[in-house]
Order: sequence, then C-alpha cells, then structure tokens
Amino acid sequence: MKTISLLGATGSVGMQTLQVVREHPDLFSIEAFAFGTNIAKALPLIREFKPSLVAVKDQTTAGKIDFELGGSVKIVSGLQGMIEAATWEKSEVLVNAVLGSIGLEPTLAAIEAGKTIGLANKETLVTAGHLVIGQAKRYGTAILPIDSEHSAIFQSMQGQDRSKVTRLILTASGGSFRDKTREELKNVTVRQALAHPNWSMGAKITVDSATLMNKGLEVIEAHWLFNMPFDKIDTLIHRESIVHSLVEYADHSQIAQLGEPSMLVPIQYALTYPKRLELKQTKRLNLWEIGTLHFQKVDNTRFPCIGLAYSAGRAGGSYPTVLNAANEAAVHAFLQGEIHFLDIESLVQAALDAHQGIETPDLAAIKETDRRAREFVTGKVMHHK
Amino acid sequence: MKTISLLGATGSVGMQTLQVVREHPDLFSIEAFAFGTNIAKALPLIREFKPSLVAVKDQTTAGKIDFELGGSVKIVSGLQGMIEAATWEKSEVLVNAVLGSIGLEPTLAAIEAGKTIGLANKETLVTAGHLVIGQAKRYGTAILPIDSEHSAIFQSMQGQDRSKVTRLILTASGGSFRDKTREELKNVTVRQALAHPNWSMGAKITVDSATLMNKGLEVIEAHWLFNMPFDKIDTLIHRESIVHSLVEYADHSQIAQLGEPSMLVPIQYALTYPKRLELKQTKRLNLWEIGTLHFQKVDNTRFPCIGLAYSAGRAGGSYPTVLNAANEAAVHAFLQGEIHFLDIESLVQAALDAHQGIETPDLAAIKETDRRAREFVTGKVMHHK
Repeated sequence: MKTISLLGATGSVGMQTLQVVREHPDLFSIEAFAFGTNIAKALPLIREFKPSLVAVKDQTTAGKIDFELGGSVKIVSGLQGMIEAATWEKSEVLVNAVLGSIGLEPTLAAIEAGKTIGLANKETLVTAGHLVIGQAKRYGTAILPIDSEHSAIFQSMQGQDRSKVTRLILTASGGSFRDKTREELKNVTVRQALAHPNWSMGAKITVDSATLMNKGLEVIEAHWLFNMPFDKIDTLIHRESIVHSLVEYADHSQIAQLGEPSMLVPIQYALTYPKRLELKQTKRLNLWEIGTLHFQKVDNTRFPCIGLAYSAGRAGGSYPTVLNAANEAAVHAFLQGEIHFLDIESLVQAALDAHQGIETPDLAAIKETDRRAREFVTGKVMHHK
Repeated sequence: MKTISLLGATGSVGMQTLQVVREHPDLFSIEAFAFGTNIAKALPLIREFKPSLVAVKDQTTAGKIDFELGGSVKIVSGLQGMIEAATWEKSEVLVNAVLGSIGLEPTLAAIEAGKTIGLANKETLVTAGHLVIGQAKRYGTAILPIDSEHSAIFQSMQGQDRSKVTRLILTASGGSFRDKTREELKNVTVRQALAHPNWSMGAKITVDSATLMNKGLEVIEAHWLFNMPFDKIDTLIHRESIVHSLVEYADHSQIAQLGEPSMLVPIQYALTYPKRLELKQTKRLNLWEIGTLHFQKVDNTRFPCIGLAYSAGRAGGSYPTVLNAANEAAVHAFLQGEIHFLDIESLVQAALDAHQGIETPDLAAIKETDRRAREFVTGKVMHHK
C-alpha cells in the first residue's frame, strides 16, 4: 500500500491523482488531503478517500470543513498546514499538485521528512531548483516528475546510458494561439486563451501554454530534474501532443514516450515507478488512426516568453525566481481582465530587466525576490489601469 | 576490447559492422571473418582488420585467398568453416550477418560455445526460432537484435516493466511499391523492386520489403526474440522510417526509438549494449526538419505476404521454415528474372498449402523441410518457364 499526501487535491492534477487512486484502492491511499477553499468540491472527496489529515488555505475554510466533518479528522490551515500535510507521518509519498511557487516550502519539508516526491508543481523547481535538488541529493530523495513532458523524458531514460545523453527535446503543442500572428495576438481574450486544443488543464497553465512560457518553465524544470545544461535542451512544436518528449543519445538514437494526451499516465507512472499498471480510463494509441504527426521549430520572435525563460535559466541565481513570480502575477492580471495578452511578456521582461541578481539565493532571499517581483508587476498593472 | 566473429562480412550489414569497428579500434577487433566468394571486396578488408581466421564458401575461394594472403592466416571453407568462424575461440561475440537460413547452424554452435550473439540474420529465427531460443535459454546467452525494428524494440524495453508489455508495433516503410495498386504490381521489374525509398540494403531484403514479407519475417522474429504472442504484435506503415518501432505498455504508454535511417545504430548498439558510443557517421535527427511523419494501416489485401507470415507463425512447428525457404527460393527466381513479382506470394502460399506440418521439428527435420520447400518452389518455377 502506497500512502499519499496530496497537495492541490481539487485542482486538475489533484483530481486526476484521485482518479488513479480510486482505481486501485488496494495499492494507494490518501492520508493527507490539502486544498484551497473549494469546500463544495473537496467535501465529497474527503468523505470518499478518508484522509487522516486535511489542510486548507485559511481559518475560515478550516472552521467550515471541521463543522461538516463533525470533528472526525484533523484540520490544519495556511502554509504551516500545507507543510504539515506534506510531511504527514502516515504518508510515504508527497504528490505536490499545487499551483505556483507556494509549493516550494512544503516540498523542501517533505524531502527533509524522507518522503518520495511526485512533482507536478513545476514552479517549485523554477523558482528554487538549486535548493530543491540540493536538498534531494542530501537526503537521497527521488523526485518523480508529474508533468507530461518530464515524465516522458524520465521514462525515456530508464535503462539507458545516462552519461551519453546529448539532448532533451521537449515537445509543445503550441497552445491556443499557435497559428496566430503577432498582430492577431494583441487583442485575444481570456476565453480564447483558455481554449487549449489538446489538454484540459487549469487556467494558469493554459495561459502559460498560449504564451509558451509553460515550455520555458519546463526547460528550467528539465535543467534541474535531469541535470542538463540549457544548450542541451531543445523545444519542438508538435501540434498533436502524441510524442510527449524525446531524449537523444550520443549514437543519435532518440528514445521517446508517446500516447494519447492524458495526465493520468504520468501521474500513475510516478506512483507505480519503476513498474506499470493498467490504465483503463485512457485511450489506446493507434498511430494509423492519428495518421499524421507534425513538427516545427518554435518561433521565438512570435513567442518571446520561451526566450526569456532560457535567458533567466542561463543567468541562474535569482533570475528564474523573478521570471516565475512576474509571470504568475502577470497571468493573474490577464485572467482578471486587467491587461492584454501581450502585456504578459512585457511585464516579465521588465521585471527581469529591473532585477539585480543574487547568485545563490537562500530560501529567505527567494521569498523576498518572489514577493518583490510580484509587487513590481502589480504596481505596473495598477499604473496601466 | 570486444573480439568479434563476423559472418557475412562483405554484405551490407557486414560492411557496416566493419565501419563501426573501424571507428573504434581500441574497443573492437575482428577475429574471424567469413564471406562467400567476393575476393576482390574481401581482400583489402582482411588486410585491414587482420582476423586470425577467414572462412569462405568453397575450396576454390579458399585456395585463391590463401595464395593472396601468403599462408599467413588460417583459411576454412563451407558450412563447417562458417561454424568454425562462429565458434572461434578468440572471439567473444558472433555478429551473424549472413543471408538466409544458412545462418542457423553457426548460430546454434556459437551459443553452445558461449558467445554473445548479435543477430542480423533474421531467417535464423524464422526458420527455427524454438531451437535458437531454446538453446539460448539453456546456455544463458544474450541474443542482441541487429535489425532496425528489433533493436528499436529492444532499446524501448530497457529499464521498463516487461511484464506489462501489451503490444509490439513494428514499423514498415512499405517498400518500393507501397503506392502501387495490385494491377500495377503485376508487371513491376527487378530494377524497380530494388529501388528502396529509405534504406540501402541487399537485394533479397529489398525485394522482401517490396512484398512486405520482410515485415512478416520480422513479426516472427519479434515473436521469438521478445517472447510475444502473435496477437500482441502489430505492424504499421510509416513511410519516413524515422520511428523505428514502438512498445506499448499496460498504461497505454508507448516507448519508441527514433532516428535517421541507418543500420549503423542497431549494429553499434548491439556491440556496446547496455552502453552507447558516439556515432559520427550518422545524421542527427531534428524532427522539425522532417516536418511530418505519416502512419497508416498495412493493407493485407494488397500485400498478402504479411498475412502468410502471421498464419505460418501462428501455425508454428515447421510452417515458418516452409514460409522462409519458399520465400528465399521465390525471391531468387524473381531476381533471376524467371518469375513475376506477384508470383512470389503465390509460390509461398502454394508451398505452405502443400506442407504437412511437423509440430516440434529438430534440426534435421528443419533442414529437410527447408530443402523440400525450396525444391517445391524451384519445381514450380521450372514448370512456369
């Protein structure tokens, strides 16, 4: 029985994690269940999965949920509550599916507490990869990627000669606006941005897909997860999202993982690794039904966010923290209808330009940099209105 | 230093094996060198690679080569000579790149002599898979595939949960005639058949690619190499020959190996497995340069040979022996201009129909069945003329 702490349980990846657990009640159980404020969504799930700890965003939500559950479960709240859920003694595995850099401290704490980490929270690695990977090395912790591309790379490295990896190739669907010109991008709406062609995901990541910032964040994530220099990480537009990513070796072989788009596969693989299990809810891939797969180079001029991510990644230190925090704030403003789509890239660029880098920031410096970058963007947005 | 016995040294795979060895004189050496009768091609290679044993087809060739080499190397001939080369005590590895079922006995002998086998000679497994695999199990021998598709499958199984393989998917370029109708196939010439769109190979395998019998033989080869039932082996037309094959797992993940078409990759991988080495002579794959990959179902009506192979494979026993021998004889007749292209399938079908199966044929029964099937086809061809 694999016991799990699930952070971000009512989000897209969280719900799909529960779907995997539901199929195999003999193999997996949810011991700690953390969500934000969506009680209506959380309550039936808590009743179904019966965790021994529930963590929520704030005191108000904690009070309401405690009332509903009749005091039968331990309830905690805030960042401390999330950390308590991440390190819950009854769990072996932390599945971190929260959104944004808020997931960093729970991850660090869980590593210290000896948990295996299933990481869907890419911002954790973007904002402070050196801290997370440093901590994981110190404690000999396995960090298993729960991101379609990184799981594909991870799967494509199993049993292979890792000293001979020459390139990681992250595929990108291109997002909702892959066929639009710069001119057309100026006035796209939130609703258009949220209509992703292949993947059903949360709002923030769907906007990140449309700007291609998502791929930029994934490049930095891959850099840390697989210890690869940035010039050995490539991106590739692949509209059908069937080839989930590829690994190139010194003999010019490429190993790839393919499948119909579904987050259930990487989620389940992280839970069963190195074994596999049946996954009935996913469709079997028959390439003859798909017929044609398309590939093209990423257009960095049309989508500058990916270039910003490479620059921030290469600059290192606190720059990726700024990239991520500025992007989170800008996407939030876009989703609120406060700025235009193309303002996202300008705001991130401006935040990076304004930043004085710190070479090896500690946790306090990361938090401070993150806070300042958000403030910077929010200030600009206010001014903009 | 990996010491190698190379059978079929002057053939296409043989020459490419020498190319790999040439690039890494510190890692590989050719200890036994077997070829047929092409002295002009063999002599400079023997002088270059300095094997301590040379095996040739017949006494005449043996005499000539002995004269040229001035008695400095041991020369042997015939099937016994090939077996001596395969079991040569100075070699650790047998690379069997001969053509046709003639490669069977040297393979069996090499397994008994404790060699690792790099197998490019697919007919060996088709004609007597149960003997080869039985022998390999008894001696704990690794059989490493040197066939683009099987190497791809082998690579895609490394580090994976083999108990959860649900399907092998062998890709096929479709050969020289993939776009022709049945009507057009009636009068195609030998020259047309030998113009393969993607791979530069020997004449026999190029014709086998055009009839799709090559894929049929590979299905049977895969059945034995990977211990897979026939209903878990699929084929897939893929014109670009970039995805070399795929393995499907229970979670509907597919792992694939990709690359620009080159036999150097599977040859070198068999020699370096489980490690990899640089391979400068091959082109790096950039999918954005290829742009589009196409996939379609195999048309069994237009190309019945693949159906014949599945039937013979499922029937088992001596049927695959008949399939292979009849095909070798029919392809030979086609290359001699004695029969039409579509006669190949009819002759193989007729030989299978005429055959009384033997359930578990021993080596003598295999050889006898093989001889009879060839005679049957040759008789029909004579009659046809």
